[in-house]
Amino acid sequence: MNAAAGGHDGAQVGGPVAPTAKSRAVHRTLGVRDVRIDGGPLGRWQATNRSASIPLGIKQLEEAGNLHNLRLAAGEVTGEFKGPRFMDSDLYKQLEAVAWEAGREGGEDLLDFLRRSAELLTRAQQADGYLNSHYQVVKPDRRYAELEWSHEMYCAGHLIQAAVASTRVGGDPDLLAVARRFADHLVKVFLHEGDPGIDGHPVIETALVELYRLTGEQSYLDLASRLVENRGRGQIASGGMGAHYFQDHLPVREADTEVGHAVRALYLEAGIVDLYLETGDESLLASSVRRWEDMVATKTALTGGIGSRHSRESFGDRYELPPDRAYNETCAAIASVHWSWRLLLATGEGRYADLIERTLYNGFAASTSTDGTRFFYVNPLQRRYDHVEGDDPGRRHEWFSCACCPPNIMRLVASLGHYVATTAGDGLYVHQYTQGTIRADLPSGAVKLALRTDYPWSGTVAFTVETAPPGEWELGLRVPGWSESTSVTVNGAAAGATTNTDGYVVLRRTWERGDTVTITLDLTPRPVYPHQRIDAVRGCVAVERGPLVYCFEQADQADGVDVEELTLVPGAELTARDEADLPDVGRTVVLSAEAVAVSQPDDGLPYSTRPPAQGSTSRPVTATAIPYFQWDNRDGRAMRVFVPVHPGATS
Amino acid sequence: MNAAAGGHDGAQVGGPVAPTAKSRAVHRTLGVRDVRIDGGPLGRWQATNRSASIPLGIKQLEEAGNLHNLRLAAGEVTGEFKGPRFMDSDLYKQLEAVAWEAGREGGEDLLDFLRRSAELLTRAQQADGYLNSHYQVVKPDRRYAELEWSHEMYCAGHLIQAAVASTRVGGDPDLLAVARRFADHLVKVFLHEGDPGIDGHPVIETALVELYRLTGEQSYLDLASRLVENRGRGQIASGGMGAHYFQDHLPVREADTEVGHAVRALYLEAGIVDLYLETGDESLLASSVRRWEDMVATKTALTGGIGSRHSRESFGDRYELPPDRAYNETCAAIASVHWSWRLLLATGEGRYADLIERTLYNGFAASTSTDGTRFFYVNPLQRRYDHVEGDDPGRRHEWFSCACCPPNIMRLVASLGHYVATTAGDGLYVHQYTQGTIRADLPSGAVKLALRTDYPWSGTVAFTVETAPPGEWELGLRVPGWSESTSVTVNGAAAGATTNTDGYVVLRRTWERGDTVTITLDLTPRPVYPHQRIDAVRGCVAVERGPLVYCFEQADQADGVDVEELTLVPGAELTARDEADLPDVGRTVVLSAEAVAVSQPDDGLPYSTRPPAQGSTSRPVTATAIPYFQWDNRDGRAMRVFVPVHPGATS
Repeated sequence: MNAAAGGHDGAQVGGPVAPTAKSRAVHRTLGVRDVRIDGGPLGRWQATNRSASIPLGIKQLEEAGNLHNLRLAAGEVTGEFKGPRFMDSDLYKQLEAVAWEAGREGGEDLLDFLRRSAELLTRAQQADGYLNSHYQVVKPDRRYAELEWSHEMYCAGHLIQAAVASTRVGGDPDLLAVARRFADHLVKVFLHEGDPGIDGHPVIETALVELYRLTGEQSYLDLASRLVENRGRGQIASGGMGAHYFQDHLPVREADTEVGHAVRALYLEAGIVDLYLETGDESLLASSVRRWEDMVATKTALTGGIGSRHSRESFGDRYELPPDRAYNETCAAIASVHWSWRLLLATGEGRYADLIERTLYNGFAASTSTDGTRFFYVNPLQRRYDHVEGDDPGRRHEWFSCACCPPNIMRLVASLGHYVATTAGDGLYVHQYTQGTIRADLPSGAVKLALRTDYPWSGTVAFTVETAPPGEWELGLRVPGWSESTSVTVNGAAAGATTNTDGYVVLRRTWERGDTVTITLDLTPRPVYPHQRIDAVRGCVAVERGPLVYCFEQADQADGVDVEELTLVPGAELTARDEADLPDVGRTVVLSAEAVAVSQPDDGLPYSTRPPAQGSTSRPVTATAIPYFQWDNRDGRAMRVFVPVHPGATS
Repeated sequence: MNAAAGGHDGAQVGGPVAPTAKSRAVHRTLGVRDVRIDGGPLGRWQATNRSASIPLGIKQLEEAGNLHNLRLAAGEVTGEFKGPRFMDSDLYKQLEAVAWEAGREGGEDLLDFLRRSAELLTRAQQADGYLNSHYQVVKPDRRYAELEWSHEMYCAGHLIQAAVASTRVGGDPDLLAVARRFADHLVKVFLHEGDPGIDGHPVIETALVELYRLTGEQSYLDLASRLVENRGRGQIASGGMGAHYFQDHLPVREADTEVGHAVRALYLEAGIVDLYLETGDESLLASSVRRWEDMVATKTALTGGIGSRHSRESFGDRYELPPDRAYNETCAAIASVHWSWRLLLATGEGRYADLIERTLYNGFAASTSTDGTRFFYVNPLQRRYDHVEGDDPGRRHEWFSCACCPPNIMRLVASLGHYVATTAGDGLYVHQYTQGTIRADLPSGAVKLALRTDYPWSGTVAFTVETAPPGEWELGLRVPGWSESTSVTVNGAAAGATTNTDGYVVLRRTWERGDTVTITLDLTPRPVYPHQRIDAVRGCVAVERGPLVYCFEQADQADGVDVEELTLVPGAELTARDEADLPDVGRTVVLSAEAVAVSQPDDGLPYSTRPPAQGSTSRPVTATAIPYFQWDNRDGRAMRVFVPVHPGATS
């Protein structure tokens, strides 16, 4: 790691989020190479991301025209601008992914792509620091004139995030120079010259805070604050989408629930918490926590998916959580992880890591095919046998005309190690479990742990101390909310530890090299019922095992067993079967249950004075479920996460 | 009625649909003044339509710019084109409404508006017959060049429908002359010159068949046929909406389910059945009937509402029938009535009149406020307490930027009499019950009946013969599918008649002046359960009484009773209470039932391993329901048509 990887003023050389030493963070992030993942689904996702997804993304940037557009802006080619106006942002997210991946595993090809891209951006950037290929090529006279849809600051935000990532992994300094020149231009216009404008799509806020953390330049933090404070004043209530869409309907301290475009809303929240972390403004944190609690209680799918409506890609009303029509945009799941992670740093509360785990293993992971080359933009919890959306049968695609999701997936996967562990006080805290190693600097010295586990297929995780600083220090292990019984041993003996109010078992002792801690979480498959106010899945049950939400996909059912007719009897035993390599799916654990197929005749009208249980026929069948994140890797038939409770059963 | 009201070749002087004498129609329509409605909701809607809605519509046409646009086209004013490109169609639907209303009750002001509009259109029309203010003013070089979105033929279709209506009620001949010139131009381009184009939005098909019926000009029928046959070849699969949206994914004879934009789909169906009626092509009828059956069984809301998705205003998958997110566009309900009516004429089957009744009294009627001045574009079956769509809380509006619905409502309400009765063979058939009179020409002479009823508040309808032709003839009375026990008397004595397979009680006898037939339908309030495949309302029940779907609106509940917590116990008695004038609602029948309010604590997560019935608290309450069509006339609070069956109850 070269000198450019350093931070100012004691900031840790972190991954995507690295609060300063003087910040309000309760937990401190580790360095970019401090966590290594070398097994399990997370390891597999990282390997596939490197071998398949990232090369695909780089190829698509050329084919879709993102690089062409910047060459146009640089005056190096002729032709038309291609794609939507936020095309630059796809490149920036891709660059961020490449940076984290280069930091994780190295790779001259990756570093070369970073370098060449930085050179192109340097050539495309205007003398005053402005950089946006769409506005430079298509609408040079409309710079900052249509902020509600321009995505100029949105693109700048992703550029900054890419530059921060590149710098933290020791990349070429050119990208940071480009980003700083653009950031300085934004500071000039929107802070010093007093333009009250805000971008229709947040992300600049959190990016500017990170740039402040990296550089120590106060004006970046001040501009981030200005942009958050200017929001919610109704200045961009135009364009037919409404003020809610842009989170411009209420100042952030007054809003008590998430509304409007889900990705916009949650990127803004990440910025709000980042601001709190560096400014200490408790009212910002309080408002964000309030909305997080409301979102989790009333607007989050079982998979962690976010955004109930296709129309406006938006949040719905409270408890409006349809399984079939859930939008659950992949980018919203990513934004949710970003937000929850910052709340975890701010508070130390394990509930935020719980939501991250739920989202990562389900709503997020389902976005990508097993082979890493096809992606979901929309992640519903049900697909009917005859599903069609427009002309689309609802399967994954290799790319999209609005390609925000794939490079966003890649940057999160490449940086997954960031979300595994933190330090706090004199302790090391582990939030996500995976095969791998964790290295951290505690006040008393360096610690290194080896993690051995087959998680999430197994619930046992063994930590071996490889390096320990002298004296007592704490090891904190998150106890997921779903684990109904959890045991912890130290060197084979019951630790007798209890879970604290933050949701962690904390072991304080003097550790020796070779000490082994084992946590065993309860992976008993469990039925999960929706709150009565969730109308769309009333009378249904889902199945989970550990952090994994399961789904009943037609491909796994015996001949003649129709997913649309399955019902589950509460109390029926759920049997787990390990599959080393389910064809086209890979390593998994399959669940099966004795179930009942209920068939109701179609008598011409779908409504009747006769209760549905009357006149239907039932027969016992075996229902088979696989983890939701592995669905749609075989064929395009029906899938359900929630299935009806057998109507003869009393709940 | 002047000479212009005549039809060719024995066509009856009908209302909106008047098949020729040589058509395949099993049932024959009556003349425009043959049915008078003078009471009940239908009578009230017609009175309010005349006194409030139509004047509002005429005012809005001036304010929104529809007339201004045509003055621009005529070169009489200067300025910008206003509104969406299909603005002309709003005027045409308004003219049709005015024509039917003038025919129903007269009115110099209405006739004057028709006359002045026809003059303006005459001046705006181009020499070759083309007429479209948007293309004439904004895009004169793009005539017919972007048919997928141009709405040129769509506007032409509504012009033709207005002209046919105006002619049938004896209006000024200028409007028909304008319409024929435009139709002749379409024939020239799309029939004789062979342009294979089709309009992205059907309605021209049924309009051309009606113009053929009125004028006898075969080329109109031929063009209608050509446009139907050209559809489904994928020629307009562009524009991001997909081929399904435009019903261009499959030729009409091959499609087996309704897909895409609901209004487009059902206007096309009306044209398909109209073509069958005049050409006798059984394959067209068979395909349309197949899709109607599929739509009713799997894609129709309890209210008759059509179109499950906000996105693309489209049909959903089979059994995708969300109450909260149902789009159920008012225009789709109107199109459904148009289609079903043609199927009734083609087949004589009462199931089509059943759907018309369900749609008219529920999904359609709810579109309009009691006072006739506010309208729903979207008609869901549930509104949550915190509902917001964009910035809109989901209440009725006075007008819309896309104002397709209000004038469409007005033209249907003004022509409701058309859908009440028909003749078939030597008989008179009554399909909808209302206070009023029916006059018809049977083969043996004129018949006139007086209908006395308080329907739908009462289930008894008395028919008194005022004029009867000599000899035997049939009186057919529809027995709605919902009436579980129905009795018919003739002059006070049980008629002993049974319902035939078409769904009618048919009384054949020699009738005398003063004979009275009474039919009594079963208005016992009834619970209605959804088919098990309708996931979105699983475990719920709705309440109907007669043709009316009921809803539980917060405004009617006692203090402290939250609509969101109501559950109904199957078998609980439903008590009807007559209300002569419920404030802001008017005449109604209110239903109440002993119910249970179930409250489940919000423990931070909306999913739990505990079934919802555990941990919730229940208390007995009284639940109150009003007819769905009368909702949203008090405040903007919650409403539900479907409420959960009490979880302790076994179905």
